[in-house]
Amino acid sequence: MRVIVPYAVESPKTRLGSILTPAERDSFARVMLEDVLESLRAAGLDPDVLATAPIDIDAPVTVDERSLTPAVNAILDDGDRLGVVMADLPLATPAALDRLFQASGEVVLAPGRAGGTNAFVARHPSFRVDYHGTSFLDHLSIAHEIGAAVSVVDSHRLSTDIDEPSDLVELLIHGEGASATWLREAGFQLDRSGDRVTVVRENGE
Amino acid sequence: MRVIVPYAVESPKTRLGSILTPAERDSFARVMLEDVLESLRAAGLDPDVLATAPIDIDAPVTVDERSLTPAVNAILDDGDRLGVVMADLPLATPAALDRLFQASGEVVLAPGRAGGTNAFVARHPSFRVDYHGTSFLDHLSIAHEIGAAVSVVDSHRLSTDIDEPSDLVELLIHGEGASATWLREAGFQLDRSGDRVTVVRENGE
Repeated sequence: MRVIVPYAVESPKTRLGSILTPAERDSFARVMLEDVLESLRAAGLDPDVLATAPIDIDAPVTVDERSLTPAVNAILDDGDRLGVVMADLPLATPAALDRLFQASGEVVLAPGRAGGTNAFVARHPSFRVDYHGTSFLDHLSIAHEIGAAVSVVDSHRLSTDIDEPSDLVELLIHGEGASATWLREAGFQLDRSGDRVTVVRENGE
Repeated sequence: MRVIVPYAVESPKTRLGSILTPAERDSFARVMLEDVLESLRAAGLDPDVLATAPIDIDAPVTVDERSLTPAVNAILDDGDRLGVVMADLPLATPAALDRLFQASGEVVLAPGRAGGTNAFVARHPSFRVDYHGTSFLDHLSIAHEIGAAVSVVDSHRLSTDIDEPSDLVELLIHGEGASATWLREAGFQLDRSGDRVTVVRENGE
């Protein structure tokens, strides 16, 4: 099965702009992408990157400068079975990805927090994506409309896309890969002093 | 195996105070508790409620007015194998709970967002809880200290405790029980108009 990891090269992770510089966001997004690729390979898959511009990375790269929906749908038009895993899922262990790819169903969805679709596997010729809005609900509807058997993977790791500062808490608690190390080396640590756990940055330590 | 659902009777769900009245919070907390009890029963378990005061509910009730940590540890002192599932997990389906209770390990932990422990199963005589702070990390440490074999259940449904308004988004998207119905009947619905999905309340519709 073809497996792709979409990656937007320009200005990644803008919602982390309050705590990371643009150069840091580039670097962090890249490390997360590499974690995802490594976990996919450890799960026995052979991913390639669907990038909006050429990038130098140790994986096959397909460049498509369009936005996510038309770029992924162009690959679905090829009619192959396809797996798509987002690049900002550094908590995605091989075991979690294995559950996604081993799940039965013609359309297997891994929802993200707040209604996103963090990963899916399609084994139906008519399935197409629409990443706008609450894409998880839209993808459920699309799957039902085409009569595809659907399953949903219940995974905290796959539901946790790293978009906002509060998501970094999850990465520091559960992360086992290079992205968690990158964060710690950048000075981030858990702040357990308040009512809710947050992250703080201690520079120059 | 004994299975308990802790329930704080006084002033539940204070973080929902910006969108629900105190009476509504009582009612909503109670519906969530009932959803959890029903899912546990559907998973073949026989839960009782560990409440801070007497309540009238269709389940056995043990009253312990102490806070969560000493109350749960008093039950662990009895030495039995024990499962503990929080009352604010209305997304906990029988299938998700089955994964928790079927997982191997002397201590099985289901982490919540931001480092909580939303559910656990203990099959080791020395395991004790400490719910203060990032209890998931503390429970991992405790389990390691006593030499217990640990496993962690990777579940979005079990990780989603309903504490804050943003959590209601998850309930409206994924909820299948009475809590989701309660929310909808109270006028809450998804607002998909903005950049991020939120909930809005339309009263009197």
